[in-house]
Amino acid sequence: MTDRVQGTDPSLKPQVLIIGGGFGGLWATRALASAPVDITLIDRTNHHLFQPLLYQVATAGLSAPDIAAPLRHILRSQRNVTVLMGEVTGIDVSKQLVMIGNEPLRYDYLIVAAGATHAYFGNDAWQQHAPGLKTLEDAFGIRARMLAAFEAAERTDDPIARARHLRFAVIGGGPTGVELAGTLAEIARHTLPREFRRADPRRAEIHLIEAGPRVLASMPESLSESACRQLTKLGVQVHTGTPVTVIDADGLMLGPNRIEASTVLWAAGVAASPLGASLPAERDRAGRVKVDPDLSVPGHPNVFVIGDLASIQCDGKPVPGVAPAAKQMGRHVAARIRQMLAGKSDRPAFRYVDFGNLATIGRLAAVVDLRGVRFAGASAWLFWLFAHLFFLIGFRNRLVVLINWAISYLTYQRAARVIIGTPKPDPIKNPA
Amino acid sequence: MTDRVQGTDPSLKPQVLIIGGGFGGLWATRALASAPVDITLIDRTNHHLFQPLLYQVATAGLSAPDIAAPLRHILRSQRNVTVLMGEVTGIDVSKQLVMIGNEPLRYDYLIVAAGATHAYFGNDAWQQHAPGLKTLEDAFGIRARMLAAFEAAERTDDPIARARHLRFAVIGGGPTGVELAGTLAEIARHTLPREFRRADPRRAEIHLIEAGPRVLASMPESLSESACRQLTKLGVQVHTGTPVTVIDADGLMLGPNRIEASTVLWAAGVAASPLGASLPAERDRAGRVKVDPDLSVPGHPNVFVIGDLASIQCDGKPVPGVAPAAKQMGRHVAARIRQMLAGKSDRPAFRYVDFGNLATIGRLAAVVDLRGVRFAGASAWLFWLFAHLFFLIGFRNRLVVLINWAISYLTYQRAARVIIGTPKPDPIKNPA
Repeated sequence: MTDRVQGTDPSLKPQVLIIGGGFGGLWATRALASAPVDITLIDRTNHHLFQPLLYQVATAGLSAPDIAAPLRHILRSQRNVTVLMGEVTGIDVSKQLVMIGNEPLRYDYLIVAAGATHAYFGNDAWQQHAPGLKTLEDAFGIRARMLAAFEAAERTDDPIARARHLRFAVIGGGPTGVELAGTLAEIARHTLPREFRRADPRRAEIHLIEAGPRVLASMPESLSESACRQLTKLGVQVHTGTPVTVIDADGLMLGPNRIEASTVLWAAGVAASPLGASLPAERDRAGRVKVDPDLSVPGHPNVFVIGDLASIQCDGKPVPGVAPAAKQMGRHVAARIRQMLAGKSDRPAFRYVDFGNLATIGRLAAVVDLRGVRFAGASAWLFWLFAHLFFLIGFRNRLVVLINWAISYLTYQRAARVIIGTPKPDPIKNPA
Repeated sequence: MTDRVQGTDPSLKPQVLIIGGGFGGLWATRALASAPVDITLIDRTNHHLFQPLLYQVATAGLSAPDIAAPLRHILRSQRNVTVLMGEVTGIDVSKQLVMIGNEPLRYDYLIVAAGATHAYFGNDAWQQHAPGLKTLEDAFGIRARMLAAFEAAERTDDPIARARHLRFAVIGGGPTGVELAGTLAEIARHTLPREFRRADPRRAEIHLIEAGPRVLASMPESLSESACRQLTKLGVQVHTGTPVTVIDADGLMLGPNRIEASTVLWAAGVAASPLGASLPAERDRAGRVKVDPDLSVPGHPNVFVIGDLASIQCDGKPVPGVAPAAKQMGRHVAARIRQMLAGKSDRPAFRYVDFGNLATIGRLAAVVDLRGVRFAGASAWLFWLFAHLFFLIGFRNRLVVLINWAISYLTYQRAARVIIGTPKPDPIKNPA
């Protein structure tokens, strides 16, 4: 097959269709800015989300617009791109069509960057009791649940119910779980105490539960230990090596032990977007599409899968589902498309450059691993802060976020403690 | 009857129950800070909302936390108040009880400041097609609808559907309607144009519809005329003197004329909170409780109604449902309760002090009437801006809002253009 579809209007530029405006899709779009193509970028939302700070929206530190900017605003000056908000319902690689609702859209090159969602490992009933954190809606739901639990603790006279409302469990000891647990502990210990009259937020228990042997398993062992120490110092109870077997409206079973908790959060597993199943390719256990070394779908050199949806090894190790990998993949496939447009037929492999790994835990608490240079605590936290501010898209967001953080830092207060919408039924409708 | 309930624990301080944490309830609470009472403030949300800027959240200029602060945070230092988040389901003045869900709460003094909601004058079916603006949830819904209409215009190929998506109708020519229409016009003319490729936001039509003879009817006639001129200059089509007779999913009937519009917003009527019906008192046509001159319920000197829920005349004119009136009422009933605690039996009447009236229209466009000193345009807008910043609760909010406004002013950009949640079905599910 050739790089262009036969029989189309020759005046038309090659059509590049990009599904998903996350790090992978957005970086691919930008890297094609000066290419002689027409790009259509489709996302189901109207915004690019800076996912590394999503836990800050969930824990009431930041507002949604601080970490989300409209895709069409980000790309306003790139004249070869049309942004569409819509839901992709199917992909037909034989006809080179993508369905947006009932409307077909033809492509010459397709980049699928549809990302991942939560996975409950077959226990889908757990979803309603233990929400995960992937979208802004998820973040608002978690924020409302967490704040409503403290409200319910203040409202009830029953000491057992109050203790349950003040008990929080975070399942999953990866970066998101560590961030959520650490921040929850800070809110309970430092932000809220003076504001309650009947309940004492300082008596809140925060449980971080990891089925594997240690938190932050992708980090070197010494940093896992440091993270565990920093969490314990903040007041988080860390449980490792025991899987959760039951989650219900009032808590969970951790091996043989019951933890009664109104608020259970899920940070344990992700599954690739179901859109991967529309492609004629093998998928791994997490549903990610197994791509060729150049990130194309086997047998379809004009169809690429990037970001969290792609399953690929690099130097014998799987490429992790992190923002820098998605950005690098986006730039790689943009370069591939330019080469194909120029008639080059070699297919250079994607190479992931790992600049390091960092995770934040709380105020002045973090761990950093820069290819062997490891540090923890206050210096790691400052490094994390500036790295994230630097990468946050848009000057305005960066400035407002910096001010919010500066004030948070000085006062321990959190700017966005607003319950919007109706929180999930459990803690609020049954105040007892 | 005496000021205290007989037969209760004498060690208990008098119980003051305040329903509603808006301007009336919050100002009453603060004015009782040093009184020898126990106050319970109940609100169905966890925050005080700065309602005069709610239209800025609806039009994507501000984030929710910019104009909303947790009630318990605002009142953290006032040790005689307990804040509860909960829904009041009934009031029994004979037993001096308020029901929060199934739980009764006893009071010695009751202040009902439950506010108002939208009214559709018997056309409740209009609500789904023409949302009103009273809560943060309302603001998010309107924001999502408005932004989704521009997205739908970009997605469709049908010029008739595109025109409908780019046509907006605001019903009601009071301050909220004028603010919404003026801001919508600015967004269409200045914020969005460069960001769309197929639809041209500058072709958007904004219709402001007022059944009465002029917009801003509570203002002097010369300022109504000025507001109308300023709106027209911004590109708003102002219709006065014709009532809307039909609203459906695709538009409305204005007398004999059809306006096809995907987005219709309701700013035409308010009705008092249904909680007023729990009180043994007459109510006016809008459902507001007719109170005695001291704001108490006739026959119940320890039960007060304040803010938008109260119907009272002052100097022969009805007191308007505005924030300054609610604050003054809150302070008045707090003073009354102090007097009753001191054993004084005279019941001084509430007197409303009207400091003036102001409404904003758009950037550098506003009208101000300070008891006869009238001005319009840029100077009025600057006056409005500083008046609102001054009254915005909490230093942090003020600073962030000021920065957002400064950047908006310089760039015409709007910080909060994020669609959260699923917009209402009409514009987004039927992209054609």
